[in-house]
Amino acid sequence: MRKPLRYLLSALVAWWLLTPTAHAQEGAGAEIDYSVTFLYIVIVLVIAKLSSLVERIGQPAVLGELVAGVILGNLVLVGIPFFEPLRDDPYIRFLAQLGVVILLFQVGLESDVTEMRRVGIRALLVAVVGVALPFMFGTLLAGPLLLPGLSQNAYLFLGATLTATSVGITARVFHDLGKLQTSEAQIVLGAAVIDDVLGLVILAVVSAIVTVGSISPAEIGFIIVKATLFLAAAIVLGQIFAPRLGQFFSVIHTGTGMKFTLAISFGLLFAYLAAQIGLAPIVGAFAAGLVLDPVHFRFFNDPAIVEDLDRELKHAPTEWATQLRRIIERHANHHVQELIAPIGFLLVPIFFLLTGMDVHLEALLNPTVLAISLGITLIAFIGKIAAGMMAGNANKLIVGVGMIPRGEVGLIFAATGKALNVVNDEVFSIIVIVVILSTLVTPPLLAWLLKRVPNSAGSDHTAGF
Amino acid sequence: MRKPLRYLLSALVAWWLLTPTAHAQEGAGAEIDYSVTFLYIVIVLVIAKLSSLVERIGQPAVLGELVAGVILGNLVLVGIPFFEPLRDDPYIRFLAQLGVVILLFQVGLESDVTEMRRVGIRALLVAVVGVALPFMFGTLLAGPLLLPGLSQNAYLFLGATLTATSVGITARVFHDLGKLQTSEAQIVLGAAVIDDVLGLVILAVVSAIVTVGSISPAEIGFIIVKATLFLAAAIVLGQIFAPRLGQFFSVIHTGTGMKFTLAISFGLLFAYLAAQIGLAPIVGAFAAGLVLDPVHFRFFNDPAIVEDLDRELKHAPTEWATQLRRIIERHANHHVQELIAPIGFLLVPIFFLLTGMDVHLEALLNPTVLAISLGITLIAFIGKIAAGMMAGNANKLIVGVGMIPRGEVGLIFAATGKALNVVNDEVFSIIVIVVILSTLVTPPLLAWLLKRVPNSAGSDHTAGF
Repeated sequence: MRKPLRYLLSALVAWWLLTPTAHAQEGAGAEIDYSVTFLYIVIVLVIAKLSSLVERIGQPAVLGELVAGVILGNLVLVGIPFFEPLRDDPYIRFLAQLGVVILLFQVGLESDVTEMRRVGIRALLVAVVGVALPFMFGTLLAGPLLLPGLSQNAYLFLGATLTATSVGITARVFHDLGKLQTSEAQIVLGAAVIDDVLGLVILAVVSAIVTVGSISPAEIGFIIVKATLFLAAAIVLGQIFAPRLGQFFSVIHTGTGMKFTLAISFGLLFAYLAAQIGLAPIVGAFAAGLVLDPVHFRFFNDPAIVEDLDRELKHAPTEWATQLRRIIERHANHHVQELIAPIGFLLVPIFFLLTGMDVHLEALLNPTVLAISLGITLIAFIGKIAAGMMAGNANKLIVGVGMIPRGEVGLIFAATGKALNVVNDEVFSIIVIVVILSTLVTPPLLAWLLKRVPNSAGSDHTAGF
Repeated sequence: MRKPLRYLLSALVAWWLLTPTAHAQEGAGAEIDYSVTFLYIVIVLVIAKLSSLVERIGQPAVLGELVAGVILGNLVLVGIPFFEPLRDDPYIRFLAQLGVVILLFQVGLESDVTEMRRVGIRALLVAVVGVALPFMFGTLLAGPLLLPGLSQNAYLFLGATLTATSVGITARVFHDLGKLQTSEAQIVLGAAVIDDVLGLVILAVVSAIVTVGSISPAEIGFIIVKATLFLAAAIVLGQIFAPRLGQFFSVIHTGTGMKFTLAISFGLLFAYLAAQIGLAPIVGAFAAGLVLDPVHFRFFNDPAIVEDLDRELKHAPTEWATQLRRIIERHANHHVQELIAPIGFLLVPIFFLLTGMDVHLEALLNPTVLAISLGITLIAFIGKIAAGMMAGNANKLIVGVGMIPRGEVGLIFAATGKALNVVNDEVFSIIVIVVILSTLVTPPLLAWLLKRVPNSAGSDHTAGF
């Protein structure tokens, strides 16, 4: 870095040039003006890339994005409301949700259905214990002890909130450190998907108890059957139809665009179907990625590179030509992951920065609330780390810590409880703090654990999302 | 295509499975549910890819997308309202606008600033004549003759609408046919950008005459100076700062993600700045693409491919190794275009399908309106084709036809006139029909002209957007 000061000065000048116009613009034309949203995307992307400097101190990039988001989101506390409209921009919020769907689709693409099946039983055990323990701890222990005097329904919701596992953050850490192929990562991913199904059941049951007063075993059974059937059908039918669809569309066009369109359509369609069933869209996107296999795309390739190859090989000796062809064709046939990567580059940082921005630090300023929150966080941690003990011969601590983040799933539970008038503002703040702590503590803790363990295969760390 | 019937049947079953759920879902969760938008994206992408079958009959893919959009958007006329919510989805509309910005950024990346400068004078002449003639024809001839009895202000708006050139459609046709590097394409692109500046001036002047009654020459001068300064500054400062920014950010990270982020941030920032000045965002995005040069990204490369190369070369003889390295490094250093391409694959079809869907065919059913529209369309065509005569030694007819599409720019003019109560519903319908005709006729006409002309350089037709 030559002359870093000059660059800093240039950056400050650029900042000053941008600032006054950012607000002047809204509601300019007769048509809807999306150009501020374009600026917000630029701000998010540039800050996310600057925050990736945390990699220099051995931390995963996602921690940088979360912390940068927390800082941006709370600058209003020191009198800088500049970033508030960014957080509230409806299109930015949409892009963030599309981003987390793309992320889980990418994670699914990098995961292996055979490996998933291999760790299936262990993932199921981890998921069941990881839901049961926090739910019991929350409902029977933490609620009555730390928050005496609230209704039984409030305790039920507190317990339900503690069951959710937010797979996005853990998946990013495993990916950032190139450990997605390890047994630990696969167990956590599998368990998190099962968690979502169980969490859905619990949320439905608890909501029914609160609103109707009871729920029949038949209704519980129906929810479970519906969710299980969706996942089974997605994986079985996906494996049958994905190759045929690839073949069918390759008749129309064999270019990179068609390959990309098929892959992304698969991911978004499954996300939509999961939402129809009542599951989180990210679960569907993950299942779609799991089902898609590079081999389904063998009908597509990049004509530009193949042409280049043919030009180069015109005068080459035969044995030479063979090796050249082999190497170039390997890269000519773009991996689906490579085609999806730019979409991830654009959208995934928006999700994590916005997740950070939604953290309201002022809740941490009330000592009682903070103390209760720390107690419940501890219980939340213990429940999931105990669940990790079911991980068989994998590293149990890594699996347990990987299950800790509650993230947006926990917040959805809390918001539902608030909408039902069961969760009051205090309990809501506490849940938010628990979510914050579980979200911010996991990346560095998991990174530290993963680096201590030499057992996993060589790092395939690429450029990151 | 083996057993095409079986695939058709499978597609129909899939369709049937999807249809009933598409409407049942809205407003399901407590949080905003974006999953229907995910389905809409899938529908748009799959239909766009199916519509690319028009390439089999020698038409550019964009025509297929526009026609597919017109069909989807007017299915409601035959009692199928299934696609109405797609057209009205705010996130889909946002993605479409982001898509056209990305498209013009891509077109700018493929254009060359030196070539632009070479054709600069001719582009300016084409633009000025292409604005002056249609404006005079519309205001003095077509208005009073074909629509007698309207106010002078209505004629002014009609004339203003006829000046706009919608560069998106023409750029797609030139790109689809691999002719973006020709002089004709560069003249049309340059003229369209200048057109947008002139159109902005005319819109501001006409609006001021209608609302205030007059506008001072100083105000007109200010608008012209502002817009010209922006474009000059974008191109000059961009060429100075782009390489330095690349160098600065390469200090943080040299991966593909950083390269992508820098490029897309540049494009979106310029789009935002153009909107601040009052220009269309697409003009800024085009200028950003024009300024960015692959050489600014020489600090970034893809470690995966370079590692692969080193592994392969371990046992290779020296002269062999040299050529291998040269070929692979060419592809290792992903072109910026390649990284932006997937964003285009995702978003650009949304723009063109939605443009098609906004065409309301019922307006064509009124014979008087249709006859007047055809007359005005003819005048609109003549004005632009006459402008093409200024194109010097390039193919004048191709340039003229390339300037014909009015597209969304014309619609913005018409909408402004309607908002100011100057343009009534009848005139608005007529303007919409003129826009439809200029939009739908240009792609096949231009494709036919381009194929008749043997003079342009070899086709670099790749997989299309």
